[in-house]
Amino acid sequence: MFSKTGNVILKSFKTLGTISIYHHSFKRTKIRRVSGFLLACGIATYKGQEYKAEMAGSLANISKFMAEPVTDKETLEKDSDKMKTRMELMIMEIQADFCRALEAEEEHGTVFRIDRWKRAEGGGGVTCVLQDGTVFEKAGVNISVVSGTLPQAAVAQMRARGKTFRKDAQLPFVAAGVSAVIHPRNPMVPTIHFNYRYFEVVDPEDNSVQWWFGGGTDLTPYYLNEDDCRHFHQTLKNACDKHDKEYYPKYKKWCDDYFFVKHRGERRGVGGIFFDDLDTPSQEKAFAFVTECAKAVIPSYLPLVKKHKHDGYGYAERQWQLLRRGRYVEFNLIYDRGTKFGLYTPGARYESILMSLPLTAKWEYMHSPQHGSKEAKLMDVLKNPKDWV
Amino acid sequence: MFSKTGNVILKSFKTLGTISIYHHSFKRTKIRRVSGFLLACGIATYKGQEYKAEMAGSLANISKFMAEPVTDKETLEKDSDKMKTRMELMIMEIQADFCRALEAEEEHGTVFRIDRWKRAEGGGGVTCVLQDGTVFEKAGVNISVVSGTLPQAAVAQMRARGKTFRKDAQLPFVAAGVSAVIHPRNPMVPTIHFNYRYFEVVDPEDNSVQWWFGGGTDLTPYYLNEDDCRHFHQTLKNACDKHDKEYYPKYKKWCDDYFFVKHRGERRGVGGIFFDDLDTPSQEKAFAFVTECAKAVIPSYLPLVKKHKHDGYGYAERQWQLLRRGRYVEFNLIYDRGTKFGLYTPGARYESILMSLPLTAKWEYMHSPQHGSKEAKLMDVLKNPKDWV
Repeated sequence: MFSKTGNVILKSFKTLGTISIYHHSFKRTKIRRVSGFLLACGIATYKGQEYKAEMAGSLANISKFMAEPVTDKETLEKDSDKMKTRMELMIMEIQADFCRALEAEEEHGTVFRIDRWKRAEGGGGVTCVLQDGTVFEKAGVNISVVSGTLPQAAVAQMRARGKTFRKDAQLPFVAAGVSAVIHPRNPMVPTIHFNYRYFEVVDPEDNSVQWWFGGGTDLTPYYLNEDDCRHFHQTLKNACDKHDKEYYPKYKKWCDDYFFVKHRGERRGVGGIFFDDLDTPSQEKAFAFVTECAKAVIPSYLPLVKKHKHDGYGYAERQWQLLRRGRYVEFNLIYDRGTKFGLYTPGARYESILMSLPLTAKWEYMHSPQHGSKEAKLMDVLKNPKDWV
Repeated sequence: MFSKTGNVILKSFKTLGTISIYHHSFKRTKIRRVSGFLLACGIATYKGQEYKAEMAGSLANISKFMAEPVTDKETLEKDSDKMKTRMELMIMEIQADFCRALEAEEEHGTVFRIDRWKRAEGGGGVTCVLQDGTVFEKAGVNISVVSGTLPQAAVAQMRARGKTFRKDAQLPFVAAGVSAVIHPRNPMVPTIHFNYRYFEVVDPEDNSVQWWFGGGTDLTPYYLNEDDCRHFHQTLKNACDKHDKEYYPKYKKWCDDYFFVKHRGERRGVGGIFFDDLDTPSQEKAFAFVTECAKAVIPSYLPLVKKHKHDGYGYAERQWQLLRRGRYVEFNLIYDRGTKFGLYTPGARYESILMSLPLTAKWEYMHSPQHGSKEAKLMDVLKNPKDWV
C-alpha cells in the first residue's frame, strides 16, 4: 500500500512499524491501533497537518502473503524497525499482490504452486510457480531472505565495486529480495522480469553496517508494439520521477547496458530500469524508492497481458517466440549476475534460481529474420535501443 | 584412415607428410608417389620389414573434405611436417568422415549445411550443421583453426594450469580443433559430443614453443541401456589402451568429474573420456593417440544410432528427452570451458560455438522422475557414475 506515498515518516508510530504519509486529504478514519503490528492505515496528525497513513513493510498484510514469512514472527516484531524486517515484509507483499494479479488473468483457475523453503546455512524463501496455465506458460515469483557469512569471492567482487570491506574479514550478511520472470503463452504478450533486493553486510569488529539496494524491471517482447513499450517505460518513469528526476534516464541506460547478450550484440528486450549499490540519499528514501518501483510492476505489465492475451497468432509466431526464449536462456545462464551469484552460493536452491528459465526454448542454427518482417523490426530495436518516453 | 595404425613413423617420407605404418601384412601395392601431397597409401619397407603405409594428417584426402581447409594449400604444403598442419588435415578428415556417416543414417536425404568462415583476427573454420532431419534433430560438426595473440585472461588461466609463460608477454598462438554435438530425434538414441584440439603458443623472445593436446568423447543417453554404455566405453578403452593402459581409467574419471552439473549434483551423461594439457610422451605419440580417439568416434556411436533409430517412443519419453536437453544447455552455458573460452574470444563465431545447443529444450519447475521408473534409473547413474568396462 505504498502508492502515492510521500516521504514523511511519522516517528511516533515507530513501534508499529514505519508509517508513510499521504500528502492528500482523505476521508477521516480512526487510526486502528490493533495490537502490535496489525495496524493497517488511518489518519495521522503531523506538525498540525492531517495525513492518511499506511504501513509499508509491516506485518499488517501478513494474512494475504503466499506463505509465512521466512523470519519467525517474534524476530520480525522485535526487529520491526530494522530495514531487513521491513524489506522482508515489503517483498512478501509484492509477491502476493503480483501472484494474485496473474492468477486473476488465468482462465481455467490455474494457481501458483507455493514452496516455502529453508536454507541450511541461514534463511530461506518462498517460491511461487505457475506452470502450463492458459495465459502463462511459466511464471515464477520468488522471495528469499538469506543470511550467512559472505564467501570470499563475493567479498572480492564487492570490493572491486567499491565496498570498503576489510580484507579477509568474516562478514555476516543478509540479502532479501523478490525476483520474478513471467513467460506468457501468447507471443503477443511480452515476458517481464523484475528483481528488487536489499543487501546488508556487518563488520563484526566495529559493528559497522554497509547496506545497499538494487533492482530493476525490464520487458522482453517477441513482437514490437510501440504503445506497449511507451506505457511500460512511462509507468517506470513516473515511479522514478517521484523520487529523483535523474533516476529514470540513468537507470534506463543502465538497463540497456546490463541486459546485453554480448556475443550476439543484441539486448534481451526493450529494457526498463536497472540499478545497483543504491545507498543514497538515505536508507529511508532508498527504501521508499525501491518500494515504489516494486509497486509499479503491476500497473506497468498487467495492462499488456489483458490487452494481448487473446491476440491471434500462428505457428510462425510461436516458433519465433521459442527462438527468442533461447536467447533469454543464453543471457540468464551466461551473463546474469544474480543467476551466477545464486548458483555459486553454497546451499543455493537451484530450482528457485532456474525458475526464470522458460518452459520451452529453441535454438536454430543461423536463424535470421527476413528483411522488413515483424521479427526484423524487433531485432532492430534490440540492436539499437531507443528512448520510449 | 588411421584405424589399426601403429606408432612407427617412416621418416624418409617426411616430405610427403607423416606416414603411419600398419604392422599387418597387406597385399603388396606400389607406393603411389603422386606429386607432392597426393600420396594416399602403399607398401613401405622399414628396417627390412614391409609395412602398409597410409598418410595421417595429409592432403591425400582433401577431395573428400567438407570444404577447403582453413589454411591455404601453399602454406599447408610448405609447413607439411608441422603439427598445426597435420592437425588441421586430421580434423578435416574426421569432420568429413563423421558427417558422411551421419548423413548415411538420414532417411529423406537430409544433408549437412556447410559454412566455411574466416575470422578477422586470424584463421577460420568450417561449420557443418544438419537440422530437422528424420534421425538427427540437430547435428553440428565444427572444425576451427584459429590464430592470433593470446588474450591476457587466457594467459593467466593457462599459467594457473601450469604453463610457464612469461608475464605480460604478447604470445602468438594457434588452436586447431574439431568439435561435434549430435542431438538425435529419437529419445532412445543418445546424444554424443566429442572435441579434439591442439594448442600451440610461441614465445617470440626465444621462439620457444609450448604445445598440448586436449579432448574427449562423451555420451548422454535419455534412457539407460547398459549394453550401449558398455559398447561405447569399450570402444574408447580399446583406443586408449593401444597407447597407454593408464589413459582410459584416468580419462574416464576426468570425464565424470568434468561433465558435472554442479548445482544439480548430477553428471551430464554416462561419460566417456576427457583430457587436457597432454604433452607426453612425445608430440608424435600424443598426436597418434588423439587421432586414434577421434577415429574411434564412429565405431563408438554409429552402432547405437543404427540400433535405436527406429525404436518406439511416446509423448512421455519425448518430454523427458526435452527436459534432459535443458540440463545439457545448463552445462554448456554455465560450466563448459570451451563454450566460455569461445564466447569470450574476440571475433568468435557464436553460431559455431552455440550449434552445440539442442533444437528444443524444456525446463519444468521441480520435475522429479517417479521412484523406480526408467527415468529414475538414468538419474541414479548420473548421480553415481559407474564403471562400464
